[in-house]
Amino acid sequence: MSVKPLEFSRKAKHTPESPISYFMEQALQNPHLVSLAAGLVDAPSLPAGPIAKAIADILADPTTAKAALQYGTTQGYLPLLQKIVNHVASLDGLTPGDLGVTPRDVLVTTGSQQLLYMLSELMIDAGDIVITESPSYFVYHSVLAGNGTRVMTVPMDEDGLIVTELETLLQRIERDGELHRVKLLYTVDYFQNPTGLTLSAKRREELMEVITRWASKQRILVLEDAAYRELRYEGDELPSLKSFDPHNRHVIYAGTFSKPCAPGLKTGYAVMPTELVEPMVRLKGNHDFGSNNLSQHVLNRLLETGAYAAHVLELRKVYREKRNTMLSALEEHFGDLPGVSWTHPRGGMFVWFTMPEEIATSPNSPFLKAAIKEGVLYIPGEFGYVSETGEKPRSEARLSYGDASLAMIREGVKRLRHAADAVMKASRQPVGV
Amino acid sequence: MSVKPLEFSRKAKHTPESPISYFMEQALQNPHLVSLAAGLVDAPSLPAGPIAKAIADILADPTTAKAALQYGTTQGYLPLLQKIVNHVASLDGLTPGDLGVTPRDVLVTTGSQQLLYMLSELMIDAGDIVITESPSYFVYHSVLAGNGTRVMTVPMDEDGLIVTELETLLQRIERDGELHRVKLLYTVDYFQNPTGLTLSAKRREELMEVITRWASKQRILVLEDAAYRELRYEGDELPSLKSFDPHNRHVIYAGTFSKPCAPGLKTGYAVMPTELVEPMVRLKGNHDFGSNNLSQHVLNRLLETGAYAAHVLELRKVYREKRNTMLSALEEHFGDLPGVSWTHPRGGMFVWFTMPEEIATSPNSPFLKAAIKEGVLYIPGEFGYVSETGEKPRSEARLSYGDASLAMIREGVKRLRHAADAVMKASRQPVGV
Repeated sequence: MSVKPLEFSRKAKHTPESPISYFMEQALQNPHLVSLAAGLVDAPSLPAGPIAKAIADILADPTTAKAALQYGTTQGYLPLLQKIVNHVASLDGLTPGDLGVTPRDVLVTTGSQQLLYMLSELMIDAGDIVITESPSYFVYHSVLAGNGTRVMTVPMDEDGLIVTELETLLQRIERDGELHRVKLLYTVDYFQNPTGLTLSAKRREELMEVITRWASKQRILVLEDAAYRELRYEGDELPSLKSFDPHNRHVIYAGTFSKPCAPGLKTGYAVMPTELVEPMVRLKGNHDFGSNNLSQHVLNRLLETGAYAAHVLELRKVYREKRNTMLSALEEHFGDLPGVSWTHPRGGMFVWFTMPEEIATSPNSPFLKAAIKEGVLYIPGEFGYVSETGEKPRSEARLSYGDASLAMIREGVKRLRHAADAVMKASRQPVGV
Repeated sequence: MSVKPLEFSRKAKHTPESPISYFMEQALQNPHLVSLAAGLVDAPSLPAGPIAKAIADILADPTTAKAALQYGTTQGYLPLLQKIVNHVASLDGLTPGDLGVTPRDVLVTTGSQQLLYMLSELMIDAGDIVITESPSYFVYHSVLAGNGTRVMTVPMDEDGLIVTELETLLQRIERDGELHRVKLLYTVDYFQNPTGLTLSAKRREELMEVITRWASKQRILVLEDAAYRELRYEGDELPSLKSFDPHNRHVIYAGTFSKPCAPGLKTGYAVMPTELVEPMVRLKGNHDFGSNNLSQHVLNRLLETGAYAAHVLELRKVYREKRNTMLSALEEHFGDLPGVSWTHPRGGMFVWFTMPEEIATSPNSPFLKAAIKEGVLYIPGEFGYVSETGEKPRSEARLSYGDASLAMIREGVKRLRHAADAVMKASRQPVGV
């Protein structure tokens, strides 16, 4: 019998395929491939022991077992909300009161990704504007595309987002009569995904001065994605943007336990202006009426016993060594190659790698093909860029040291150099040969 | 400094406050209240032991520990997808092949609620039509309101949704030139939330005949919400609507592990037409790129070891006794009251209770106030109804025996009768006294 084809919603049609599914497939198909592409965390250091103990303790006591296995509340497990707000404040050496927040300003989400998604739903109608760093986290761009958001970008340098460029952009948007459409500024301000760059202390203060000053004309919420904050390997703790928002008006601080603890627990959170909480909880009620309750009880226990803090200290050592290994491998294998450069992240799990302009890193580029042939994978840098004209830097790449072992990091960088040599050799051959 | 007020999205403005938050608050504020309102599951029977064992086993082996604590895939853990498709088919005494499905047609979600949400996003633009039973699950209505969906309803009787009424509705919609806007038919076809009613075997066949016949004009996807299916206390297993869809074209079968296992694991799933999978996975990638991985590994192990099946058998006994207790308490306390009736569910956790027409059960009604005063809470039936005119039955109520103990069920029903007596007594008093 004939059936009419299905007609999907506008949202479905605007939701792009994940640019990295191809890369995931490649990695799965070739087990000998060294993946410097995946955003996975270091597996050997996952805290299986502490999590096993926390769960055993919770489930051994009938009262806590029932609480953890029953439905929870939509906003999140209250003792965890309390610990989160204390934890976030303590990273700034402050109290929740200093930040103008209480546990009731926290929402627990399915990883921080769900927070990015729901906040976009809450604030954005098609045609509204979100400002991001350039480059920025490509999965967030995909969320914004699904919503019909216009993305405008601010360039970065070694100190992160260039605040004077933000000011110039806002002035231009105001002249165009579109200031009222600007809803959010998104920044991954610690050890950014994808570049590894960090917003400097001075820039933090300047950025919040701009946001606060413009708020009399347009309230632009700052979405501070601090996913990598706790994975700092050198330098001083930098104040959060949230710490420049003492009346809790401007900044949504998004955190996650995936990076500093375990992605398998899939638990993120946000500390946000009070007026956002009720509508966000309402939306969350429709999404799933509350994140995984067992995971919340586990994290509450890990924070309570100190196991979480101890694990983060351990993780910093593990990743510091991985970062050092990648940086020294890059120096060893690319130090002699003119036009090649890379960032020196002080935390997180990503290095941003720039090839000479004539060597494209794009999907389907000779370099990427050569890299796969050599057995190494990276994320093409252009996925991080949004451009109305289609013009994007085409010679950059995100290299991750999160998942690969020390030996694999060294091997992967070596293979990258072989791929570069192969491409350069081919391009030096006369045309037609 | 002055700040502009925030402007939320249209979606946020259309997302209603949960009608039951008031009831949750009441229940929290008064610990002596007997709640027949909550949709919580029976707590003493939660499978803490089997879950503790599954997690201990998973986390004791470094290979499985790493797999469970790392990121998973967006669609779900493949061994679990395989078990789900086998499980769903086996409930019908069939194989996945009989249903025309493979593990690749399964998506794991954060409870089945997330499936309801994402499917609505995928299929519905503002103004599109979804057909539901009347009454139906009120949280789903809230999702649809957020999307600007037009909800049209089909009445039910003791055999569930009245299929001839569906046919009449479709004809009317077609005459109005709006057939192309009808995207989904939503049915909770086993022991429905809120009424406890079940779609009969004959009606199942008739319903799928209608859907299949109309598909040449308009493909209306059937969202079969089978959340309570496995909690059956009497009678034969009824074939799923999915089993009448051998080419996997018409029915999305939504299941959950919250009701038959543990809500704290927050894991649901859908088995769906293949053409929906890729766009749903794309959307899921934007939402959270995959549900809680640890919970998926736990459920996979419980299904594998037989602990899940054993638990469901045990649960049926527990809930059967609770249902029997509620039905006999209703008979005892309301059997003598003319105009009062209630459903006799063969499974699930809800009884639909109808008072005489002159006694409203609405929020703010004298009856609800009297019930709270007596110390018992129910869900007003009108939350289950959608009506363009605002006309709704006002004398019905959802009574849940999921959470309350046997003694509390008896006590709650007794208190309900006291509340009814108080209201009837007051209404017999002359006006002005």
